[in-house]
Parts: sequence; structure tokens; C-alpha cells
Amino acid sequence: MKNSLGREIPDTIKGYYKEVKAFTGAYDNIGDVIKTQVRAKSLMPGKKKLLNSLEEAIKKTGLEDGMTISFHHHLRNGDYVVNMVMDKIASMGIKDIKIASSSLFPIHAPLIDHMKSGVVTGLYASYMSGPVAEAVSEGILENPIIMHTHGGRSRAIESGDIKIDVAFIASPSCDSYGNINGLYGESACGVLGYAISDAHYAEKVVAITDNLVAYPACPIEISQDYVDYIVVVDKIGDPRGIVSGTTRITKDPIGLKIAKTTAQLIEASGLLKDGFSFQTGAGGTSLAVAASVREIMKEKGIKGSFMSGGITGYMVDMLEEGLFDSILDVQCFDLRAIESLKNNKNHQPMSASMYGNPHNKGAVVNNLDVVILGATEIDTDFNVNVTTGSNGVIMGGSGGHSDTAAGAKLAIVVSQLFKGRLPLIADKVTTVSTPGETIDVLVTERGIAVNPRRKDLIERLKDSKIQLVSIEELKEIAERITGKPMEIERDERMVAAIEYRDGTIIDVVRKIKR
Amino acid sequence: MKNSLGREIPDTIKGYYKEVKAFTGAYDNIGDVIKTQVRAKSLMPGKKKLLNSLEEAIKKTGLEDGMTISFHHHLRNGDYVVNMVMDKIASMGIKDIKIASSSLFPIHAPLIDHMKSGVVTGLYASYMSGPVAEAVSEGILENPIIMHTHGGRSRAIESGDIKIDVAFIASPSCDSYGNINGLYGESACGVLGYAISDAHYAEKVVAITDNLVAYPACPIEISQDYVDYIVVVDKIGDPRGIVSGTTRITKDPIGLKIAKTTAQLIEASGLLKDGFSFQTGAGGTSLAVAASVREIMKEKGIKGSFMSGGITGYMVDMLEEGLFDSILDVQCFDLRAIESLKNNKNHQPMSASMYGNPHNKGAVVNNLDVVILGATEIDTDFNVNVTTGSNGVIMGGSGGHSDTAAGAKLAIVVSQLFKGRLPLIADKVTTVSTPGETIDVLVTERGIAVNPRRKDLIERLKDSKIQLVSIEELKEIAERITGKPMEIERDERMVAAIEYRDGTIIDVVRKIKR
Repeated sequence: MKNSLGREIPDTIKGYYKEVKAFTGAYDNIGDVIKTQVRAKSLMPGKKKLLNSLEEAIKKTGLEDGMTISFHHHLRNGDYVVNMVMDKIASMGIKDIKIASSSLFPIHAPLIDHMKSGVVTGLYASYMSGPVAEAVSEGILENPIIMHTHGGRSRAIESGDIKIDVAFIASPSCDSYGNINGLYGESACGVLGYAISDAHYAEKVVAITDNLVAYPACPIEISQDYVDYIVVVDKIGDPRGIVSGTTRITKDPIGLKIAKTTAQLIEASGLLKDGFSFQTGAGGTSLAVAASVREIMKEKGIKGSFMSGGITGYMVDMLEEGLFDSILDVQCFDLRAIESLKNNKNHQPMSASMYGNPHNKGAVVNNLDVVILGATEIDTDFNVNVTTGSNGVIMGGSGGHSDTAAGAKLAIVVSQLFKGRLPLIADKVTTVSTPGETIDVLVTERGIAVNPRRKDLIERLKDSKIQLVSIEELKEIAERITGKPMEIERDERMVAAIEYRDGTIIDVVRKIKR
Repeated sequence: MKNSLGREIPDTIKGYYKEVKAFTGAYDNIGDVIKTQVRAKSLMPGKKKLLNSLEEAIKKTGLEDGMTISFHHHLRNGDYVVNMVMDKIASMGIKDIKIASSSLFPIHAPLIDHMKSGVVTGLYASYMSGPVAEAVSEGILENPIIMHTHGGRSRAIESGDIKIDVAFIASPSCDSYGNINGLYGESACGVLGYAISDAHYAEKVVAITDNLVAYPACPIEISQDYVDYIVVVDKIGDPRGIVSGTTRITKDPIGLKIAKTTAQLIEASGLLKDGFSFQTGAGGTSLAVAASVREIMKEKGIKGSFMSGGITGYMVDMLEEGLFDSILDVQCFDLRAIESLKNNKNHQPMSASMYGNPHNKGAVVNNLDVVILGATEIDTDFNVNVTTGSNGVIMGGSGGHSDTAAGAKLAIVVSQLFKGRLPLIADKVTTVSTPGETIDVLVTERGIAVNPRRKDLIERLKDSKIQLVSIEELKEIAERITGKPMEIERDERMVAAIEYRDGTIIDVVRKIKR
């Protein structure tokens, strides 16, 4: 069948946890929802949770062939926990495990061997890069992996679509009864927002820590009433891979030009006034947009409401300067963000569900005025691909892309017209991560294109200095230089299905023909 | 049928939300549990939650005859919200409403008229005092009310025993998208621990506030993803009834003597060492125990772990002196507790479930060394009544009594041998609130009685200066002075059923014969 974006979606997906439902529109499945029941084992007073080894914990959870386990990705490319747990599971002879990890990074390359040996047979992730992503793209798993958005992953867990048998939670600080925070310890990562749904909905929860602290581990982010067992290990991660020291604004003149244009557009949109709310990523161009917005806010004495999402020191600076009232933080990108989270009451942690789940009573993304987004490709319908390269290999994923785009009043994609020799704009993106109906503007170094659906915005910008071009014109400009890219040949075999945030299938990724 | 304490329990209870299950022992129902599914309505981006009136909110929730609504009691005897909501419901012609309020106070007397008129036909509470409690005791409702413990109430909500259709949450600070905290505003009450299960499990949640703050209401205790609607009213409560200015230690010499003896007992028990954890109430004698324990801790340089429960300034002093590492706070009793919660990271809020729910993965009470408890009556099996007067009229309820008694290593009841002219110790308490198997010691001005089940403690105390008497001896001493109290005559009709924390029926209250 074809979904509403014209993407061919199979009627069934092998190994999928529910019936295939095709994407029909970004706002079609809002309304009545059910959060699933949770099975748990309550604990007798006097019983201990602290175990002697990971093996003992795995045994106690009752983990068996065919079960689903989960991990969070706050330790990013410094995470030791996924590999540690999977190596142990493999050594115990357990097979056919489905991994629900909020994201996977190059450090998780050892999973490939576990996939080859049948220990890992399924994968769910909101973002993945590196060897595992490449191996999946080449068809290492028999069943397609399922990719979610950050909010969609919470939705899938809370609705019961993904039933987690055991959640393994990397815990930078943990006490002997399972209270957890991410603020202290050598592997401090800040907020644990992506792990909250796992803790609340998994049947069994194991905290893995390298920093056992005195009870209770204040301030508690995941509380003891959700945690079954605690295991202490030597190291849960490598700090160098967990957080960056500082995040930097781009120095590239094209990036800076795009950033400046974007800030002017935001100003012209009428949204940049007292109460302004804003999200931008940690990339160099995104930060440059923040810098340009900061200038305007200072100049005009504008006092914003909140910044949200993954947080960097640059946003902390803006909070501390009083340009914004608060930060709603789902993950800390650098040490300065962690410090701020520790010390500033207006730096508020949030769960991934509170951040972006479309099936709760109102996520933070719903309150965003402006979000700055990236793109690997964008097509003339404004559909965005951040999941695969134009060669079809998985090298990312939506993360919060689709969530914020759907929620924000103004979702702006900023990008150079070329990525190396590859053009940004395509007739049809290789993979749809985020539907065009939720993308309002594309800003490039050669001009700004507004989504024709946003007639109100086009009208408003007529009175401003902002010059608009059509996305088709931008595409032509680029193709005059690079020529039309070759279509890549695909195998029939599906290697990934992309769930939109509401659980419908927005696209699939097929195996590359070599 | 008779339960394991010999209490006569009916086979069915009119209007009860489940099958009657008799109490069989304090630790009999720990193990496999299910947290129920939750129905909710997710919200489109752009939709508003802030409504113009309480009536509009009630209409939007779809509240109908026969439904169950809930309230929390953090505004205590200063609460305006219960009466405000019930008056509005009555004026809208809605009938047959069941109220699940965590507690009720004298200020809620207007409920009596709503009971008479059939607007309110059912009641669940963990504690109640004043005219409503008296009217219930006299049989104003056709169906018995159900009384819970604080942890048991969370259990009942989370398990689905109590299905809340609409939770009305008194919100000292709230923003226009439903983030709530209790720290700021004229009706500040501190922690909102008793409201958390309501927010997480009710189908509809309405925040009622007199202090609409800028989004987001940091620090967020109940988050927007759980809240459907917000209503702003003139006042949600009377600060004079919400918190006391200061809480004071008793000046009564008998109370002080009991307190001193209790502290000596705690010391002799061997629990008073580094890592000590302690809970005591806000009453004068309880605070005097804390004062005596404080002395010993200072003298001996003991560093405790945590204090928990309802928190007073006295405990804050002990935290700030460094005698304890932290406070786990489910409700603030005074202004000083609220200030500490605002400013001290080691003053940690907790939900009622985290505090005392026996059916989660381990409540805070499980980690308590010592709890100091009160009693209206205690019997020679150490069963405690804190629910009814010896005249059979409801004037309290377990609250956290049974939860802490079950969890703590040492549960000590402190009381004078007489309450006015009435003796403390009975052959059989009028009503069992807390089973004797969870009570370890009774301390009175005439001696200390250890529960014979605690052979280990009796053995240990042999080497100390602590003199023990049997509870029977204490009873005789009292009866020599007061004589045996008259048995009160009871009607057959049941006015309340008392659920133990695990949801079994530990006792019932029958109507008084006048």
C-alpha cells in the first residue's frame, strides 16, 4: 500500500510488534489513547536490591530467549553499558534478544557480532550512526529494525507497542535501593530524560552504576519504586565520549550567513517577542542561529520563555543572561549544561514523553515557537530525510526532529545547498523522516523557501525585507552545478521501517544493491 | 468471615469497588502486581488547556452521575478546593459522586449537605476528622466509606481498584499548560506527594490554581503531560489552615519523660549509629522524641541518613546541622519545611507511592530504621487504633501509620497511659488500623512493653539499662485507676471498611447505637 506521502509501505513487516498502519497525516492520530498496564514485582521490607554481578542481575530478571531489553543513550559515544550487558547475555547463552535502545553510536560496533551469532535479532532506535547502522543497512538482521522519534519511542513504550522485559539503565549516580540521577560521578551525563519511560514501563529494571552513593541519591530523577536491582561495575562509560567540553559556533562563512538570514526570518515572523520559545541543536550552524537570535533579543530587550531539547552551554549562557526564563532539558550535551542543571532551579529536566510524546496530554514541543532543524535531504514537498544518506545507508534518525517540527509554530530547516558534492534538495527524498506538512521554511545560503502551505507566513513576509524563492528554484540552482544525482538501486528487502511519532509507518529503508 | 486478627469481616461490602479480601498478615500480598492501564486524551499542538471557569472544566471532563473524583489534602484544614468543586458539581445537577480524597478535615463540613442530597454517595479517605467524619460514623451514607493508608491509597489507584474519572488538583503554582508545584504562591503547601498517583492515573486531570505563573512552573512536580485543564480561581485555600507557622515540642512533663525514654530505647536498640534513618510525626511528643534523639546524635557524633514522612522545621534544623544527610518529604507541615524544600537539594520531595506503597519495587518506609507512632488505643496484641475514638466515632485514620510500621525495623508507639479518663490499652482495640505484628514497642510514662514477637530486641535490651514490662502489666496499672471501660454498643450497619495497605480488609467500623 502507499501512505499519504506516496511511499510504498508493505502490508506486513516481519517481526513487527503490531499491525502495520500507514502514515496518513501528521495530526491524524491525536485523541483517545491508552497507556498500557505494567507488570511488576513488589519488594518485601528488608530485601536487598544490590547484587554482586551483572550475571546475577540478568538471572534474577528472568531474561529469556526472545525477550526485549532496553537502554538509554545519554552516555552517547562513551557508553560502555550496552556492550557490557550484551557480552554478558551472549556468554550466558541467551539468544534472540530485541534491543530497544533510544540511540546507538559507533562505540556499539560489538553488537554486530551479536547480530551475526543470533544473540540480537531485533533493534529499535530513534537514531543510530556508525558500524551498526551500516551493518543494518546491509541487511545483517533478518527482520527490519524499527526507528522512532524520541517522543514516538516514549509513545511506543507507554502504549505497550514495545513491551520491555528488562531495562538496563546506565546510572551515573545510584544508591543501594535504586534512586538514580545523572548529575554526579565520573560518568555524569546530566538529565536521564530518555530513560524515564523505560523505568516506568519495563517489567524489570536494572540500574548499572560506577558510582554507588549514600541513600538517597538526591536529587532523584528515577526513583527506587521503579528499580528492581542495582549492579556496580568498574566504569559505565568514557567521559570523553559522554559530553563534549565545549560546543562551538560554526566559523564557516556560509554557515554564518545562513544563521544570520534565519535570525532575520524569525524576527520577521513576528514570533520573536516577549515569551519567545526556541529550540536548536548542538551543531555549529544551529548554534550560530542561536547567536544571531541572541543579538536581536539583547538589542531589542526581548525576554524569552524557554529553550528546550538537548542543551549546550550556549543555551545556559542565554538563560544566565536573562534572555530566557528557563530551560526544559531532555539531555545535556556538555559539562556546562550539567553544571547548570545542578545549580539553576530554572533549568528543568524533562522526560522524553513530556518532551515530545504526541499521545500524552500535551508535550513541550507543542509550546515551541521556533525550532531550528537540520536535513540530509529535503524534497519539493518539504519532506526531510535525516535518517539515511542519499546513498541509502542509515546514518542518523529523527530523534526529536519530527516531534519538534510537528509541535513548533515555525519549523525551520537550515542547510547549505550542497553536502559535499551532493545536492540538498531532491524531487523525492531517499527516506522520509519528517513529513513536509510540519516543515515551514528552508533557509539556505542561496535563499529562503517557505512551504506553500504556510500562506499566512508568506503573506506576513511580504511586508518585510525577507526575499523568498520557491524550493523548486533552489533545487534548480543546485542542479545547475551538481547535475541530477543518480538514483540509487535498491533491493526489495526491507532493512528498516520508520515509525512516525504516532506509530504509523512513514517510510521504509530497503537494502542497498551493491 | 473472620480475618487473621479475629475481626468479623462481611463477605460483601455494599458499593465496594472489588471483592472483599480479608486481612491475613502484614506481608502476605507482596509479589506479583499489576499497575493498571490508563485512558487519556492526547492534545493537538495549538490547543489551549486554560479554561474560563470551573463549570467549563467540569463539563469538558465529561463528569457524569456515578463517577469518582479525587482530591489531595496538602491544603489540610485550609483547603477551599473540595468544597468549591462539590458546590459547583451540585449546582450542575450531577449526583451519585464518589470522592477519593487523600484526607478530609473540619473545613469540609459542607460535604454533609451534599451527602444528604445524594450528590455524594461514596467516600474514600486515608484520614478524616471533624463533622464529615462524625456524620459518616452516624451513618449518613448508605454505603460504607473505604479508608486506606497513604501508601495503600496509591496502591489502590495504581492497581485500578480505585478508578478516578476526574482528579481535581489544588495547585499553589501552575502555568497555562498544567505544570504544577506547591512551593510558591499565597497557598503554598510544599510537596504535592499525595496528588501524584491521582495525576498519573486519573482519566482527566484538572489543575485548580490561584497563582497562574509563567510557563514553565519550575521546579515542576506534576508535569503538563498529565494535566488536561487548568482553572484559575480567586483562592484555593486559607494559608492559616494550610501550614502552621512553627511546630512546637511538647512542654508537658509526662510527654517529655516518654520522649526521653524512647530516645534511650532507640539508643539501646543498636540502630542509632551512622546511617540512621528516622521518621516522626509533627505532634508535640513526637517532636520531643526527635529532640532527645538529636541530643544523643550530637553527643556521640552520629551522622544519620534520612528523615522521612510529613516534615516540620524541627527536622529541617536537624538536616541543616548535618545530623542527617537528607529529608524525603511527602508533605510539608510548616513554612520552614517549604523554605527548605525550595532551597536545599537534599530535601527531596517524594510521591505517596514512593513513600509507602507496598506494591511497588520498594517504598521509602522499607528503609526506615525507626518510626515514632501515636495511638488512640493499643491492645495486648499490639494492634493499634488511630481511626476511631474508643466511642467508635471516626476521628483519624491510618495515614502513614501502617505503612511506616510495616516498613521500619523498629516501630515505636509512644503514648500516655490515659487519654483524658480513657485508658490507652484495651483487650481488643475498637478498630484495628495497624496490625500488632508490625508494632515493636509501646513506650508509656509507666514503662516500656516490647512486642513478644520481637525476641531479638528483648534479648538485646537485657544488657541495657532499659527496664521492660509486659503490655498486660501496663494495662492493669491503667485499669486500677480508670476501671475497665464500658463496651460501646454497635449497630449492625457498617459505616466504614478499613483497607490494610495491601488492599485486604483489616477491620470495619459499625454505626454507633445512640
